[in-house]
Amino acid sequence: MTHAQPSIQILHAKWLITCEEKNQILEKHALVIQNDKILAILPSDEATHRYPTALHQHYPSHAILPGFINSHTHIAMNIFRGFADDLELMDWLSNYIWPAEGKWVSHELVYDASQLAIAEMIRCGTTCFNDMYFFLGATAEAAEEAGIRAHIGMHIIDVPTAWARTTEEYFSKAIEFYEAYKNHPLITPTLAPHSTYTVSMENLKRVKELAQQYHLKINIHLQEVPYEIERSMAVYNKRPLQCLHDLGMVTPDLIAIHMTQLDQQDLAILQEMKPHIVHCPESNMKLASGACPVEQLNQLGINVALGTDSAASNNDLDMMGEMRSAALLGKLVAKDPKAVSAETTLKMATLHGARALGIERYTGSLTPGKAADCIPINLNRIETQPLYHPLSHIVYAASCHQVTDVWVAGKQLLKNRQLLTLDKSKLIKKAKTWRNKIKK
Amino acid sequence: MTHAQPSIQILHAKWLITCEEKNQILEKHALVIQNDKILAILPSDEATHRYPTALHQHYPSHAILPGFINSHTHIAMNIFRGFADDLELMDWLSNYIWPAEGKWVSHELVYDASQLAIAEMIRCGTTCFNDMYFFLGATAEAAEEAGIRAHIGMHIIDVPTAWARTTEEYFSKAIEFYEAYKNHPLITPTLAPHSTYTVSMENLKRVKELAQQYHLKINIHLQEVPYEIERSMAVYNKRPLQCLHDLGMVTPDLIAIHMTQLDQQDLAILQEMKPHIVHCPESNMKLASGACPVEQLNQLGINVALGTDSAASNNDLDMMGEMRSAALLGKLVAKDPKAVSAETTLKMATLHGARALGIERYTGSLTPGKAADCIPINLNRIETQPLYHPLSHIVYAASCHQVTDVWVAGKQLLKNRQLLTLDKSKLIKKAKTWRNKIKK
Repeated sequence: MTHAQPSIQILHAKWLITCEEKNQILEKHALVIQNDKILAILPSDEATHRYPTALHQHYPSHAILPGFINSHTHIAMNIFRGFADDLELMDWLSNYIWPAEGKWVSHELVYDASQLAIAEMIRCGTTCFNDMYFFLGATAEAAEEAGIRAHIGMHIIDVPTAWARTTEEYFSKAIEFYEAYKNHPLITPTLAPHSTYTVSMENLKRVKELAQQYHLKINIHLQEVPYEIERSMAVYNKRPLQCLHDLGMVTPDLIAIHMTQLDQQDLAILQEMKPHIVHCPESNMKLASGACPVEQLNQLGINVALGTDSAASNNDLDMMGEMRSAALLGKLVAKDPKAVSAETTLKMATLHGARALGIERYTGSLTPGKAADCIPINLNRIETQPLYHPLSHIVYAASCHQVTDVWVAGKQLLKNRQLLTLDKSKLIKKAKTWRNKIKK
Repeated sequence: MTHAQPSIQILHAKWLITCEEKNQILEKHALVIQNDKILAILPSDEATHRYPTALHQHYPSHAILPGFINSHTHIAMNIFRGFADDLELMDWLSNYIWPAEGKWVSHELVYDASQLAIAEMIRCGTTCFNDMYFFLGATAEAAEEAGIRAHIGMHIIDVPTAWARTTEEYFSKAIEFYEAYKNHPLITPTLAPHSTYTVSMENLKRVKELAQQYHLKINIHLQEVPYEIERSMAVYNKRPLQCLHDLGMVTPDLIAIHMTQLDQQDLAILQEMKPHIVHCPESNMKLASGACPVEQLNQLGINVALGTDSAASNNDLDMMGEMRSAALLGKLVAKDPKAVSAETTLKMATLHGARALGIERYTGSLTPGKAADCIPINLNRIETQPLYHPLSHIVYAASCHQVTDVWVAGKQLLKNRQLLTLDKSKLIKKAKTWRNKIKK
């Protein structure tokens, strides 16, 4: 039987790397895409034979894999990329980032900065990001227009900002945003209380109730730096994770970000309650926060996803670089070169991200029925030759410049390194205009 | 007065980053190159006026800096890039690398692999590398033909290999190589005893005598992994650094590679004797060896250079990625985000590399009179916008794909990302041929 739907696109690749839990590397296979979904995975010859009139595209030196899921970021902060580096966290925040944000953050800035960041992410093979910032509508709008999948964290913090002055306003804006986007195919609202040191227990309880009412994931920065533990012990006489546990918030709907400071008691809670953890190795290193013990968590069966954090503390949104850093740092921390293998790392950036975000049923791997969120990576480069194992090169040797194309939900966003839904020159021009204002 | 030498090339840049000890970032300046040397650094307008008939090239969105110096590598091992990963060091060496080397390493393989590696290094802005491997002539020949600056370590190891069967043969081949290249403008012979656990004290003493006789630098892997210390204590009842110190080898002519395992006694020796240290953060992380305490060494006034190690344990030869890893890891290890700043890191990859290799007088910074070894980096990219500080972006945000051109000793080796002295397609083809042989 042959098919002749014009809505079918077929991507033929040297390798398909499925990133399913039992990962497969299929040689000379094709990904059959119908509308927004993966219809089938077939040997190339068979796909050619079965779909003679479909649009066939050939990636003869490429590995096709699911797009990357950046499980923690604040994309609009890339307008402050390189604004201030090599500083103590509190000095950096108090004397550089917060004053600049206080002065400049607006719907307009967040929209422009989000577009710039989305352009960078698409160029690096990211098909979904999990954000946390202010002026949510601006980021959602930019994501929707660009065609990228976005989880937008509805920020709650006990500090007045240009976005909201009071706790009431934070909550009412969150609900308003939720109502606007609750059924959107690409945008998913989530809750994002900043941390246990910037949100009171009372307000965290309210976040939990809201999450239950609307079935929302909760993102929170947790145990990122030693200071957080010290403060929590001084104020509550318990560690931040224990505070959340006592509120009943530590569940599989919790996305705990950073987690560089863990003791045995923390590990026991994590193992029992199974929240998801997002590891941000480059930001943690750059801010000298500490290192999440990824191998240990994996061995305890705790799901660990990967995020870049913002470009203000990274200073990029490149998930391929982040994978490499995660694999390298993971081995050093575990004192074991077998730890955090290439395959584990690739899954942290794909399937395990989808699992953390609660979207594993429709993205995160190349599986028929899931969304066609996928990227070809060209491995026929000086930098990735000779080639013994494509997966090794993707994690340890390739760079995001080798991502040639990007599809999200069957729609192509990058073609032969050219952005199809964003205007690169215009974005660079806008970035320069903001830079000139902020630099003053 | 105006000049009209046709041998003058003038590179105009948005920024010149000199990388001198007192680093300068000069806006809208020009690098005036005469033959193989930097003749002058002038404001762009002045250079235009003074040299009306010279060849003017404009880099309006670029920073021009000295080329990178990769202070430790085994370039030909890139033929084994990704051959085996995620393994214990001794398992990796004994069961994968050494058998493959034993079977395949030859003049022909080293020549082909060196060409491939040099192509990668040039594409990443490296203008000088400090190597250590077998079949020295093959690497020297490849470097000479490609026009890159190379320090070739004359390997000494108490193990028979395809290169030399006996200690006598290692030494005689070293002397032969030295005689052939002692006056070469681009190739510098150095001594490279493998380590204190693979070379006897007697042979190390001989290395030292040879170094003194011919005024050669000595490269050695030193205190890379805990095992090395344990073995040295068991065999000699002293640490490897102390062994070398007792032989009188710890001097400013010693290049100690790795140094991840340091105690107070080691630091005292280093501070007194001032050898140079090469930090290889990515290899050390990937093999879970440990981390060199760069900030502490810098504070003691000990010179630390940067190297990638081989692509078999990295898995690339990219000095820009290595800088970023060095800065990030340096902060984490020092528990201080101010540690190993962007500027310090850039110097580790340029001037401090030249200092370690003993060639600071003629390369490593943009200084009139030094060799014209320089690279423009285009910062007008999505990934490096907005731009507040060019130096921050070079270390923390840019990638080597933004290196547009490369000059070594005034000769252009890369032009708008195209290799001028090597044939990319031919190299990839050769890499594939070797891969097919080795994979069997």
